[in-house]
Formats: sequence, structure tokens, C-alpha cells
Amino acid sequence: MVEYVYLIMTDDGPKKAGIIIIGNEILSGKVVDANSSFLAKELRAIGVNLMRISVIPDDAGTIGKEILEFSETYDYVFTSGGVGPTHDDVTMEGIASGFHVGIVRHPELVRHLMNYCGGRTNAAVMKMAEVPEGAEIIDIGNAGFPLVSFRNVFIFPGIPQYLVKKFSAIKERFRCSPFYLRRLYLDAKESDIAEILNTVVAENRDVAFGSYPIIDNPGYKVVVTAESRSRERVDLSVEDLIKRLPKEMIVRVEKNDNQ
Amino acid sequence: MVEYVYLIMTDDGPKKAGIIIIGNEILSGKVVDANSSFLAKELRAIGVNLMRISVIPDDAGTIGKEILEFSETYDYVFTSGGVGPTHDDVTMEGIASGFHVGIVRHPELVRHLMNYCGGRTNAAVMKMAEVPEGAEIIDIGNAGFPLVSFRNVFIFPGIPQYLVKKFSAIKERFRCSPFYLRRLYLDAKESDIAEILNTVVAENRDVAFGSYPIIDNPGYKVVVTAESRSRERVDLSVEDLIKRLPKEMIVRVEKNDNQ
Repeated sequence: MVEYVYLIMTDDGPKKAGIIIIGNEILSGKVVDANSSFLAKELRAIGVNLMRISVIPDDAGTIGKEILEFSETYDYVFTSGGVGPTHDDVTMEGIASGFHVGIVRHPELVRHLMNYCGGRTNAAVMKMAEVPEGAEIIDIGNAGFPLVSFRNVFIFPGIPQYLVKKFSAIKERFRCSPFYLRRLYLDAKESDIAEILNTVVAENRDVAFGSYPIIDNPGYKVVVTAESRSRERVDLSVEDLIKRLPKEMIVRVEKNDNQ
Repeated sequence: MVEYVYLIMTDDGPKKAGIIIIGNEILSGKVVDANSSFLAKELRAIGVNLMRISVIPDDAGTIGKEILEFSETYDYVFTSGGVGPTHDDVTMEGIASGFHVGIVRHPELVRHLMNYCGGRTNAAVMKMAEVPEGAEIIDIGNAGFPLVSFRNVFIFPGIPQYLVKKFSAIKERFRCSPFYLRRLYLDAKESDIAEILNTVVAENRDVAFGSYPIIDNPGYKVVVTAESRSRERVDLSVEDLIKRLPKEMIVRVEKNDNQ
């Protein structure tokens, strides 16, 4: 059974991911989370399907339960936050309790912390060397402190500058086949195009369409997106849509083959 | 049993809330969600405890399951997105399937839609009059289209301008006793204050502390927050912390009694 799960996870198809943002400061409105939108954009650009984002408090029990569930559901899990030296940093403790493993002090992290503090460490600092048993250390070269992973969970710090640096250093390992995205900017109310769009959607089930009303823009009122991993299929479906829409509604069509 | 649940929900203690952001456009990195951070800040300001934010795709099954779970767990649930006329707007359908109720066309919404469209409606537009059986309409006066609620779930549109307008119109009904927030700006590394902070935290269990490293700021390197619904308790705990910290570390202390 376990082997079967691993077979699914290592096949060549598109991968699914989940993001868990850990931090009372986000839930209490003190800090605006920038990490989930950064990761969402990056994952899309490398072809990974992001399925869910959770923002949860600094509570070890909640963290462990959530990470375990994500780990069992998605190919990759990216967490942000809760890895510093203070009392509210309980991500490692949460993972250990959620996966029923112990906490160990990782020698490589001890070495990094000793270097970082010039030898002057204390108990609070050494907490940052503690990881769930079985965690791995990903040395990311000149991007600073190593990154810790546990099974399919990649444990990022909450500070956006560090998260960006670390994710950028390792992102190529997650790359899948790309998405092809088309955007139609329309000078029409969403309610005026809904029936035409619904027909095209029904006839192109393998293309993902989205429709987004835009407020206060003088040039266009709706953006319709079409997306697929097949360039041919997305282009055919967009041609189909363009043919059915009144010409005067179409402001412009954008192609993006890099995302 | 049901009455018992309602008793809990209508007592005078602080209320708990969850936010569900619905939309493929957020997960695929096309749009940055502004609604959850707006709601997080607003809820805090009126004393409501936000416990969790979920961002999920435009999938009726996922939406129904998530809203049901939040509805059973928290006092209030706020959803955003999936309420327009197009194929990807499936929030109402999701709620109906999740709570095992039917979909009905609400006469008051029909009237609003007829007015809005000057009588020229179509099937796609009329979809916006369809709600889960038992849904209520909250007339929010001059803030435009009515807001739909279902049990303890408040169903907002995804367009930020509309969400802001509608939430602002109804937020007073959710007001609880306020939080008192103090911020200490410190010129110290987090690792240098961690042990002192951990001691103060342990001795003031009824005050919520947070510690946030700040990068690239010349004035201070850490912000410590202390928060409680008791002004006296938060102030005593902050005095305790200030006494224990080396004086030269403290850049300034901010009090916020309006949040």
C-alpha cells in the first residue's frame, strides 16, 4: 500500500501542492501574508497545481494535524513560519507530534548556528537546530541558512525575504510540464457574455476557463482566462470563443507561453 | 442538541470566525487575494477571533465540505467568491450539496436582478437569484446588491470593492469585547531576547505574545507584540518584559486601545 502511494507520487504527471501559512500575526491582521501569493505564482510558472492554501495559528496540535493531512493529500507541501527561536515558533514540534516522531538536534544545523552566533549560543537559539526525526537538510549554497524538509514537506521561514531566496534556490526540482495561458480583455458586462462562455466551457472540458469582472477600468470590464497544458487545445478553444463573441466586445487577447 | 449549539453561539463570550476564499485565480497566482487580509484586520478591530483562512478552488464538492466544516466549528464563517453568473461560480451549489438542501430562486434577488438589468435578463443572470434553501437576504441599504447568508455563513462576492462595502455595512453585528495591543520595537536580534521573552510568556499565560524579526530596518530588528482582552493584564505583562530587557534595546513602545 505504501509502495503504491509512492508510485503515484513519483510518476511523471503534473504534481499537486498545498501551502500552509503558520502565524497568529496573519490571522490577527497585524501582518499581510506575502508568502502564499509569491508561492502561488512561482508554482504556476513551473507547472505545479496548487490545490489549497491554509492559514493557521501558532498551535502545535493544529499545525501537526494540518501538515499531516496535506502531506497525505498532495505531492508537495510548503509551509511558512514558526521556525525561529521564540515561544511562538512551534512548527517543528507540531510536525513531530502530528507524524508521531521524536525531535532530534541535527548536527549540521548546530554547526550552522554556532557559525552564525560566533560560538555564543543559548538554549533558545539551539532550539533552531531541533527538527522532527527523519528530517533532511537541503544545503542551498549561498542562500544562507539550510532549508529543512520532512518527507514531502518543505519548511520555510516566515520572513518573506528568506522564503523568496530559499524557494528560488530549490524550485527547479519541482518543475512539471507548463500551463499555456490566454487572457481575453472584454468590454462587456459579465452577465452579457455568461451564456456564450458557458457554451464554450461545456464544449472544451479539457481547457480551464475563468471569468473575472473588473471594476473601475475604462478599457475593459471582464477578463476571461483560458488555460491548458496543451497549447493546441487552449488556442482552439479561444478561437472558438472569439468567433462566438460580438467583435466589438474584444479589446485584446494576450498569450502567455512562459507560464 | 441543536438548541444547545445555539446557546453556545449566542452567549456573550468572544466569538470565533473562519474565512474561506474561493477561486482558482488565487491558487493559480493570477490574482493576489486582498479579501482575507482586509477581513482579518476588520475582525480583529471588532474583537472577533479569526481562527483559520482557507483558499480553495472553484469546485462545488470542495466548497460544500469546507463551508460545512467551518460552519460547525466557528461562530461565523465569511466566504468570498464564486457568486457570479458564469460556469465557475459554484459557491451556492457547493453549499446546497454540502448541507444537503435544495437550491431555490429567491424572489427578492429576482427583483433586484430585474432592476439591475433593466428587465433584460437571461438564464445565466438569473442564476444569481439562486440560493441554498433556507438562505436569508440581508438588505444592506445603499451598498448595492443584497448580501446572502446561510445559517452562520456570510456569502460575499470576490470583487474586493464589493466585499469591503458589504462587510462595512454589516460588521457592527459581530462586535465583541476589544483586544488591547502593545508593540515593543527592539534593537536586538530575536535570538538575544528569546530567553527573556520565553520567561515572561511563561509567567503571563493569559497574555498572547508574538515576536517578529524585521529585516533591513535600520531602527529596530524585532517587534514583540502583547495582546489581551484585559487592558490591565497586558500592561502589567509589558511592564514586566520592559524591566527584564536591557534598556538600550528598547526603541519604543506603542499602545493601541482601539484594536
